[in-house]
Amino acid sequence: MSVGGAGTGASASAGAGAGAVPAPGEADAPGADAARPLVAPPSPERLSLNTATVREQWNLRQMIEACARHGIRGISPWRDKLAELGAGEAARLIRQHGLTVTGLCRGGMFPAADAAGRRAAIDDNRRAIDDAATIGACCLVLVVGGLPDGSKDLAGARRMVTDGIAAVLEHARASRVPLAIEPLHPMYCADRACVNTLEQALDICDAVDPPPAGGRPSGAIGVAVDAYHVWWDPRLPQALARARPERLLAYHICDWLVPTTDLLLDRGMMGDGVIDLPALRMLVESAGYRGFHEVEILSTRWWQRDPDEVLRIVRECHLHCS
Amino acid sequence: MSVGGAGTGASASAGAGAGAVPAPGEADAPGADAARPLVAPPSPERLSLNTATVREQWNLRQMIEACARHGIRGISPWRDKLAELGAGEAARLIRQHGLTVTGLCRGGMFPAADAAGRRAAIDDNRRAIDDAATIGACCLVLVVGGLPDGSKDLAGARRMVTDGIAAVLEHARASRVPLAIEPLHPMYCADRACVNTLEQALDICDAVDPPPAGGRPSGAIGVAVDAYHVWWDPRLPQALARARPERLLAYHICDWLVPTTDLLLDRGMMGDGVIDLPALRMLVESAGYRGFHEVEILSTRWWQRDPDEVLRIVRECHLHCS
Repeated sequence: MSVGGAGTGASASAGAGAGAVPAPGEADAPGADAARPLVAPPSPERLSLNTATVREQWNLRQMIEACARHGIRGISPWRDKLAELGAGEAARLIRQHGLTVTGLCRGGMFPAADAAGRRAAIDDNRRAIDDAATIGACCLVLVVGGLPDGSKDLAGARRMVTDGIAAVLEHARASRVPLAIEPLHPMYCADRACVNTLEQALDICDAVDPPPAGGRPSGAIGVAVDAYHVWWDPRLPQALARARPERLLAYHICDWLVPTTDLLLDRGMMGDGVIDLPALRMLVESAGYRGFHEVEILSTRWWQRDPDEVLRIVRECHLHCS
Repeated sequence: MSVGGAGTGASASAGAGAGAVPAPGEADAPGADAARPLVAPPSPERLSLNTATVREQWNLRQMIEACARHGIRGISPWRDKLAELGAGEAARLIRQHGLTVTGLCRGGMFPAADAAGRRAAIDDNRRAIDDAATIGACCLVLVVGGLPDGSKDLAGARRMVTDGIAAVLEHARASRVPLAIEPLHPMYCADRACVNTLEQALDICDAVDPPPAGGRPSGAIGVAVDAYHVWWDPRLPQALARARPERLLAYHICDWLVPTTDLLLDRGMMGDGVIDLPALRMLVESAGYRGFHEVEILSTRWWQRDPDEVLRIVRECHLHCS
């Protein structure tokens, strides 16, 4: 049942999706679906807004004010909007409204056809780290990049990613900005990110920032786990179990729609798709994650909606469907 | 450079893509791209046509006659076309034209919301096995199915797949029809196949048909490796190395286009996309595969072309770009 899907017009409420998880107090009610594990709803305090969700409707100032207005305590801006407002002014506004910056989107895009291109990417990532430090972001999210133009050398692109991350890691560490590698769904392998599983991202973390023998990772680098990108992975439970809490830097949520009509811009509101988000959250929390739940919905449908309505629905669906 | 992409009209030849692999005799030519491993072109004798490639233009009789006319030695029909012609008549025509049936597409689709649905799927798979035996298919390709309607229980769907395969394996064995599990790209996890990596498919093979201690797999079940579905997988080399030749039942090729505009029907001709198909063929052959190279292109663009022209381009691109 759709919870405010674009086709349902402006009056959707989140009630429809509430059946997916028992509401507080109903967990033991007779007739509850015995096949579904009972998962307590998440704290609304953990909700964060990835600003891509309303990127077509608002500028960053409006987004910050809207988060405060809707009682959303976390925010994760994108760099284009940050540049528009200015990182210093953004930092001031974010502090003023008491928001936590759960991430800055995004660094990465390391592979390039020539050395000059790869150097330019590294320089750009340093600037992103500086901006992340200015706004006090919990991490810089890395969408690592795909194949350089004209290349079919996937292994080579993946080496460029590891090399690029290694080249900026010390600047990140010195700036106290953890780098969060975001494995993207394999359908983005060619053009957006050639890191496509959580295991692969953890391998890179271990390669560039090996934990001391018997010790724990430094926390300088880790992963951003996005439900949309990893939900299908048959090795996800093992990968999450392998990740140490120090490596779990961000958790992003939205939903996988059936059918999906566009590879990039047809992501769904939590509850509108097929991902068992409460179960996934349990897995992530079992691995030691204690951070925010960042809602990131790239969707031409949701971008056509009144953004205040979008945020109301985000709050409801975070609580009842994730 | 596009090799006969739909946008280029009817006069495309395959020459454009030939640069991807040295033509015979040019491998040592000065100026050859040093970064590219030198791979001998495949034998045209290994080419097989998955009839989905021209499904909108021809019926199965026309497809069989066209393969013979174009010197294509293998064919892999789909069940709808087979039903239309009749399995017996298809078998007669295929024998008459001396074609090898490299697979029958498709069985699978095991998960269902209730026991009756799962039984119906098993019955349907038995009929598919019978048809595969009638036409002498080298294997029955299994597209295993996704989540039952309304379900978010991915682990449960995966159990239904293993159970369904186990339920038909003895009938397949008795009918001398090997079952080829085809892992599908993770973007089909929800609605087409919840087996999404080669490793996962091999795990199922080992579970339902464990090799004897120290011995080799029976050959009753294995995998169909489709370049489009597996090219992105960072663990592909390990998975192929793990697969025994007895498990490698089919190899399908096409290409991943950038951009890809439709999740299902925008697959590319070999050479038009970003998959390093010669390198992938080397990997598959290194693992012991000696069978056909089956071209399967689901594409609304190619379905608009003259099918004889499509087959000419398929032959050229198999030789020069795969």
